Amino acid sequence: MKKQDILTPIGLILVFGVCIYGISQGSTGLKTFIDPPSFAITIGGSFAAVLVTFSLDDIKKVPKALKISITSNNIYKMDLVDQFKEISRIVRKDGLLAIEQDVSEMEDPFLKKGLELVIDGIEPENVKEILETELSSKEAMYEQGSKFFKIWGSYAPAFGMIGTLIGLIQMLADMGSPDDIASGMSVALITTLYGALFANGIFNPIGYNIQGKGEKEVEALEMMICGIMSIQNGESTRTIEEKLVTFLNEKERKTYYTRDGNEESANAA
Amino acid sequence: MKKQDILTPIGLILVFGVCIYGISQGSTGLKTFIDPPSFAITIGGSFAAVLVTFSLDDIKKVPKALKISITSNNIYKMDLVDQFKEISRIVRKDGLLAIEQDVSEMEDPFLKKGLELVIDGIEPENVKEILETELSSKEAMYEQGSKFFKIWGSYAPAFGMIGTLIGLIQMLADMGSPDDIASGMSVALITTLYGALFANGIFNPIGYNIQGKGEKEVEALEMMICGIMSIQNGESTRTIEEKLVTFLNEKERKTYYTRDGNEESANAA
Amino acid sequence: MKKQDILTPIGLILVFGVCIYGISQGSTGLKTFIDPPSFAITIGGSFAAVLVTFSLDDIKKVPKALKISITSNNIYKMDLVDQFKEISRIVRKDGLLAIEQDVSEMEDPFLKKGLELVIDGIEPENVKEILETELSSKEAMYEQGSKFFKIWGSYAPAFGMIGTLIGLIQMLADMGSPDDIASGMSVALITTLYGALFANGIFNPIGYNIQGKGEKEVEALEMMICGIMSIQNGESTRTIEEKLVTFLNEKERKTYYTRDGNEESANAA
Amino acid sequence: MKKQDILTPIGLILVFGVCIYGISQGSTGLKTFIDPPSFAITIGGSFAAVLVTFSLDDIKKVPKALKISITSNNIYKMDLVDQFKEISRIVRKDGLLAIEQDVSEMEDPFLKKGLELVIDGIEPENVKEILETELSSKEAMYEQGSKFFKIWGSYAPAFGMIGTLIGLIQMLADMGSPDDIASGMSVALITTLYGALFANGIFNPIGYNIQGKGEKEVEALEMMICGIMSIQNGESTRTIEEKLVTFLNEKERKTYYTRDGNEESANAA
Amino acid sequence: MKKQDILTPIGLILVFGVCIYGISQGSTGLKTFIDPPSFAITIGGSFAAVLVTFSLDDIKKVPKALKISITSNNIYKMDLVDQFKEISRIVRKDGLLAIEQDVSEMEDPFLKKGLELVIDGIEPENVKEILETELSSKEAMYEQGSKFFKIWGSYAPAFGMIGTLIGLIQMLADMGSPDDIASGMSVALITTLYGALFANGIFNPIGYNIQGKGEKEVEALEMMICGIMSIQNGESTRTIEEKLVTFLNEKERKTYYTRDGNEESANAA
Repeated sequence: MKKQDILTPIGLILVFGVCIYGISQGSTGLKTFIDPPSFAITIGGSFAAVLVTFSLDDIKKVPKALKISITSNNIYKMDLVDQFKEISRIVRKDGLLAIEQDVSEMEDPFLKKGLELVIDGIEPENVKEILETELSSKEAMYEQGSKFFKIWGSYAPAFGMIGTLIGLIQMLADMGSPDDIASGMSVALITTLYGALFANGIFNPIGYNIQGKGEKEVEALEMMICGIMSIQNGESTRTIEEKLVTFLNEKERKTYYTRDGNEESANAA
Repeated sequence: MKKQDILTPIGLILVFGVCIYGISQGSTGLKTFIDPPSFAITIGGSFAAVLVTFSLDDIKKVPKALKISITSNNIYKMDLVDQFKEISRIVRKDGLLAIEQDVSEMEDPFLKKGLELVIDGIEPENVKEILETELSSKEAMYEQGSKFFKIWGSYAPAFGMIGTLIGLIQMLADMGSPDDIASGMSVALITTLYGALFANGIFNPIGYNIQGKGEKEVEALEMMICGIMSIQNGESTRTIEEKLVTFLNEKERKTYYTRDGNEESANAA
Repeated sequence: MKKQDILTPIGLILVFGVCIYGISQGSTGLKTFIDPPSFAITIGGSFAAVLVTFSLDDIKKVPKALKISITSNNIYKMDLVDQFKEISRIVRKDGLLAIEQDVSEMEDPFLKKGLELVIDGIEPENVKEILETELSSKEAMYEQGSKFFKIWGSYAPAFGMIGTLIGLIQMLADMGSPDDIASGMSVALITTLYGALFANGIFNPIGYNIQGKGEKEVEALEMMICGIMSIQNGESTRTIEEKLVTFLNEKERKTYYTRDGNEESANAA
Repeated sequence: MKKQDILTPIGLILVFGVCIYGISQGSTGLKTFIDPPSFAITIGGSFAAVLVTFSLDDIKKVPKALKISITSNNIYKMDLVDQFKEISRIVRKDGLLAIEQDVSEMEDPFLKKGLELVIDGIEPENVKEILETELSSKEAMYEQGSKFFKIWGSYAPAFGMIGTLIGLIQMLADMGSPDDIASGMSVALITTLYGALFANGIFNPIGYNIQGKGEKEVEALEMMICGIMSIQNGESTRTIEEKLVTFLNEKERKTYYTRDGNEESANAA
Repeated sequence: MKKQDILTPIGLILVFGVCIYGISQGSTGLKTFIDPPSFAITIGGSFAAVLVTFSLDDIKKVPKALKISITSNNIYKMDLVDQFKEISRIVRKDGLLAIEQDVSEMEDPFLKKGLELVIDGIEPENVKEILETELSSKEAMYEQGSKFFKIWGSYAPAFGMIGTLIGLIQMLADMGSPDDIASGMSVALITTLYGALFANGIFNPIGYNIQGKGEKEVEALEMMICGIMSIQNGESTRTIEEKLVTFLNEKERKTYYTRDGNEESANAA
């Protein structure tokens, strides 16, 4: 149900492509801009500050957060409406127990757990409480992942400046010919460039990306809670559809109503 | 009911007009300031960072957001009061079904949907829930559009600085005569200029513009929800007018009460 | 009931006085600092960006917002307590209709409207709803006015920098003698000075001023709503006074209790 | 019950001591750094901007806010618990009227007023409403005082930069020998130094100080409201103590339970 | 139940290691970068500003806050679920009094106090109120500790700049040979380096660290409140487990269900 979000890798390649194009317009080659010690100071130093900021547990979540950041979940919400309509039809015809088999085969762990609680006959307010605590625990996870990259993105330019200051102080303390000064200054500025580039081309964009993806996931989970509670309350299939469709944005709604299999719904609405 | 907002294009033309005027006061012509590689680094690089930040779905909404940003919806709210007064009169005389024809011909999809739900006899709390979920979904759409331009506006100066740093590092690494330095420095600074100009002359203003227009639209939708709920509760035409007029600002209210067709209301109020 | 706030004009005069004093300490006269093209770029350019940001409707409110910013409303709140005590005494003696004449002569449109609704016998919850919607509409108006100047104050230094960059790029591209460089640099920096001065000496202070005045007005309106609801609930004059006095700050309260006409209240309290 | 907070004056002396120490390490004396016109531009100009920002009424509160900022109120909260336990014991033994004498001798005006309202037999919800409005009025007073210094702290560096720009423009417009340039530059930078020093060494710290002291005062008032409401509800002395102790932080609590006179409570808890 | 968080010391060592590595790449040794007067101005001056900002009481909490920042509390939450399951089983079999002995031996003071209140038969709403006030008092303590380092981290670069300005002004006022200028400039920049390094390598990371650890502790306390209230309400062991497991993040949950002793629960869930 989820598809690859190719924009993130494309964007990252473009960021560096644009910089290489800019460098190729100048008088010196790419080699002037590759300086491992500068990289160590800027990226290593800011990562060390990130280590001080977070606990080991937070940092272990980063690979997962990165994985989320390159996964799209847009089509998902339209399918959810169909799924809940189907479940609602079965429940209203044959009762809650009739969906037990379907539920056990569901992929989404949140939806599965919610419906299992309904089938188990847990009280509506308890179901809602459990699902909402789960949702806010997921929300916190996304926030943490986003914060990791945003904070790294705030330390990187600072360590870029620290590197440039170290270079400048050394250059000024031990001054030789004007040419030496210029080339020392040139090297000193590379850390500032690295800091600005990594912060604004990678860390901040990925931080915002995770935040945005997280907000969409949370919205989908809120939609599921809404659907699950409606199923438990025994609301009509038409009401459930009406409620869930409001979670779609205008474009998704248009797509939803103009699909082949939903023509009658489109007319009815 | 909506009219073109000509301030946005006028403002954009003025921003560039002022810059060209400023340039014309100096010793070199406009040509010094046109440098496609600098444009590529600043605008291309910051757009690449924007691609990393947002998903394909978010970016598809941008043309729509831009369209909103050049449409004004001020007169709208006064007409809404009249429309609701008219609907209220018919409903109180001939019942809810009497407005079915008028509702089916309405332009505004939100108002239409809300009144259809009322005519269909959906419970008040369900109508309110459906409309409020729809409203918060619209609110999120505006926020997304505004965020797109604001984030672009924060990356643009950063990539302007990145371009200038690339130019400076090359200039310092490969230093020739003082004249070369000056002209290299001149080119290097163009990316900073582009970054500052596009961020503060285009991206940030449009981002705030969409936010402001969105807030007004949301207020109009809240006004519609207020009116729709009052119609469903069977409140008197006078009470509905009184409630809806509070959504107008002082100036609109004065205009509203001094129009020809409302003189008696003005006296009554 | 309102008195002129002379601090705002005094402050504005002082800001420029201090700058002129500073200039008079240096080697060149005021003439060095008057440069109409720099003014056009900084103030014109930032105003153009403001035009893109706001709609025509928002900008029409600016003169009103400016007028508010030079009007003080401090004495007001003490008078309000007296006014409500008087109204309460009449209402408790002769009933609601006895205040009809007084209400129709009131200056403040908010207070007048609120009491008229009470006299008309509108339900308490409806009166509260109408007044609170009106209050939040006023609150939005102040926010808009404050935002106008704050956003202008954020664009002004940016266009100051844009002007300086234009000057620098031209100077570096077309370099002559060191003296030319210095004088070109001098002119280029004037836009930065204008941007910093207008943002920090005019736009931001006025933006905060409107915000502060708006917050006080909103507090006065909340006090009126509190008083109006108490009148409608038929609370005792003593309770109404007690409630309204809490809206005064400590100093106003001391002044209130030590006035001649309130000596007995001071003793009673 | 309140004691002098000597940290604020010590800190202020240290800030300037450190700067004088730093200056004494260099080649020129303190005299280089004392320049009344620079002081006038930076502090005078930023104060003029502050005058535009605030109304006369707000500025009159500053001496009081400053006084609060050098007063500590830490021991206070422990004494409050004792006071409420004492009051509760008397009330439960001899009724509310038995505390009338004690209340009339209380120092704290908030506590005194709250208990007087209880003795006067005002309804609990009205007592709570009056006290909470009073609390939020005090909260606003602290916010205002804190905002005054924080806003001054944001204008000061801006006027420091304005002064430096004025000096730079004059120096560049009227260039003489390199030595003149250096000494002109030196004077120009003094305003930036003043701006940074006053903002970060005085205005911002005092602004945060007032905010912190205000938050503690508000917490103490919330504790009083909690105690007053418990007295009015006739809760047991043990419950009141238990409730109020939660307002103490861990350290205060430890001190509270290990004092001589409370040994039995410590054992009971 | 808590284990040492070694990431914080590792990160701090790495920050300085990276800087020493960067310095070792340049032409001058570490000695150029060690300048006690610069340290006194930057760290001493910013600490003096911190003294103005906070009261003695706030500053006394710093050692405790630092201790928290190097302690991890991750495993904790899984153990809490087990502990509550155990308590619930005993309570449902033998009643509340059966856990009195276990409770008196508990390490965690919050959990101990909460359960003691339950055993003492305090009303559920009072237990909740007392525990929530305690929680918000703890929350405030963490906020204070975090704020201390964040504010220090904002003053440090400012005092770094103040030190550099003092050096620059002295250098320009008393100009000698170009070599003197360079070395004076070199020393002047050291304070800026110190400010940037201490702010971004120590103070800000530790400030965020305390904030993050505090949020986790608060979440654990909320989990305890949830468990304590469920015990008091006599909910089933299964419901309590279900509720508490939602406080675990996905990874902890997986670990929880795959442990040996919980296999049956994993199957049941």
